[in-house]
Amino acid sequence: MSQIEIFKSALDEEIESYAYGAHPLELYEPIRYLMHLQGKRLRPMLTLLAAGMFTEDWKHALKPAHAVEVFHNFTLMHDDIMDNAPLRRGSPTVHAKWNTNTAILSGDVMLVQAYELFLNSPEGLLPKILKRFNRTAAEVCEGQQLDMNFETRQEVSIPEYIEMIRLKTSVLLGYSLELGAILGGAEDTSIRSLYEAGVNMGLGFQLKDDLLDVYGDPERFGKQVGGDILANKKTYLYLKALDKADEDTRQELLVHFGKPAADARAKVEAVTAIYNRLGIRDITEELIRSYFEKALKAIEGLPVEEDRKVHLLGFAEYLMNRDK
Amino acid sequence: MSQIEIFKSALDEEIESYAYGAHPLELYEPIRYLMHLQGKRLRPMLTLLAAGMFTEDWKHALKPAHAVEVFHNFTLMHDDIMDNAPLRRGSPTVHAKWNTNTAILSGDVMLVQAYELFLNSPEGLLPKILKRFNRTAAEVCEGQQLDMNFETRQEVSIPEYIEMIRLKTSVLLGYSLELGAILGGAEDTSIRSLYEAGVNMGLGFQLKDDLLDVYGDPERFGKQVGGDILANKKTYLYLKALDKADEDTRQELLVHFGKPAADARAKVEAVTAIYNRLGIRDITEELIRSYFEKALKAIEGLPVEEDRKVHLLGFAEYLMNRDK
Repeated sequence: MSQIEIFKSALDEEIESYAYGAHPLELYEPIRYLMHLQGKRLRPMLTLLAAGMFTEDWKHALKPAHAVEVFHNFTLMHDDIMDNAPLRRGSPTVHAKWNTNTAILSGDVMLVQAYELFLNSPEGLLPKILKRFNRTAAEVCEGQQLDMNFETRQEVSIPEYIEMIRLKTSVLLGYSLELGAILGGAEDTSIRSLYEAGVNMGLGFQLKDDLLDVYGDPERFGKQVGGDILANKKTYLYLKALDKADEDTRQELLVHFGKPAADARAKVEAVTAIYNRLGIRDITEELIRSYFEKALKAIEGLPVEEDRKVHLLGFAEYLMNRDK
Repeated sequence: MSQIEIFKSALDEEIESYAYGAHPLELYEPIRYLMHLQGKRLRPMLTLLAAGMFTEDWKHALKPAHAVEVFHNFTLMHDDIMDNAPLRRGSPTVHAKWNTNTAILSGDVMLVQAYELFLNSPEGLLPKILKRFNRTAAEVCEGQQLDMNFETRQEVSIPEYIEMIRLKTSVLLGYSLELGAILGGAEDTSIRSLYEAGVNMGLGFQLKDDLLDVYGDPERFGKQVGGDILANKKTYLYLKALDKADEDTRQELLVHFGKPAADARAKVEAVTAIYNRLGIRDITEELIRSYFEKALKAIEGLPVEEDRKVHLLGFAEYLMNRDK
């Protein structure tokens, strides 16, 4: 097995063998349901990859890595209520399968379970790990609030959008790497570099999501192409298009995003045609590349042997080039 | 100032000067709103009272005590969504004043802020404090889930009801005292005794709430008399009445609790008349007294000087005798 496969299999076993709680069933069953829907498990993987750069004993990072995945899934459970989302990873969301109250309360106890898993960190590291986690968790909530605010705001600037996705998505990827570095016993400068690497990876990752929503292969991406366009979501592609468009095209875009689509396919095609005309795909791909390159550079600069960097570098490149 | 007044004023200053977070405003404003609605601040008071029994330096317990109050208010913010409650302490609930999404997300970040406040505990005590807090927080969620389950269940036994209020309300009062004892440097046996004292106090406290809902002076209690009866809530009074009633009275009660009231006042009067006939008030008062007496006994048995116990004993008696 490759290093990645070893980590993935250890994570799967750790997560699938964990019960979270027993009674009452209505509270804990939704947690197991969501945790077993098999997402990418990207964040705990980053934690193990970072820990593995500094120590052979990456196994003691398993439960804290699991904590990050539980936290991430807690945010999904609550975000899906707020976004009124019927599906998650192709299956019904918790509030759709059970009800909203269950999704609120199961989510709450999930956040508690994340902290409980963190308690499996070495005692001396616990205050540092929790201090940084608390900051990150608050930022993720701040990002979700900004995302909701943007839905009803007329004007959103590109820097505001980048700041929103930095908070909502990227800081948790940064923290995942940071956590692994702390647990691996890295120096503070390396811990900070890995945090920055993770944040840049996260920005690239989210922009890639925005891009694949429009330009992904529906067979591979597994979501409806143009979902963001149909939801009138102010993604980077849309904001950049508004920015580059002449006045007529700008008005055309605003009209498309100002109302529900009468003909969904026609709307996606029309907006995509505008993006194509303005070269939005290339611009976005270039920005994604620049974020990932910052991340790769930060990893390459770490004071550890080259062969310890290859797994994380490879994983970052895989994320950069993913088509689903 | 009395010891209680000194603690109360220190708590008020601690809580009122704390910002919880700044940006975006939509996320943090509801936290300040709810925290400043001026509840009883019973739980952090218990923490300070317990700490003060073992140390002069009770001030280092202020931030962890504040953490417990933030956690309690987080549960109120989310419970009020689940219970569809329009008012809290006479003011609009957060989901009513803002909206449900705001109440979900502000509540989430509140739970994170509670953990952040706990980080102000001495490092060596942190794992123990958090371990016991996590267990307590999960139990509070379990209690809320049981409470919701009971709403739609036909039969609830008295032991099941007591277990529900133990989880939903009492364990947090137990933890509040336990936390103070840990921070005060108490021995494990004293820590455990104070936890048990708090749980018994919590059971008495909740049963007193059930009682005051029917027999309280509306001017003093500040809630609508008979609110639980109108909401068809299966309180101790109702369950005990069902238990003691002959078959005809039992059917009468079941009919009253099986449908919304056509005439609210008539319903409250009819049910109260049944309670009166069955002597439910005396039975409930006796049970409340027995829980508080267990608590007082546990406090009296602590291996500290008598004059260190008086403040907590006095506070417990005040809770037992409260009429609002």
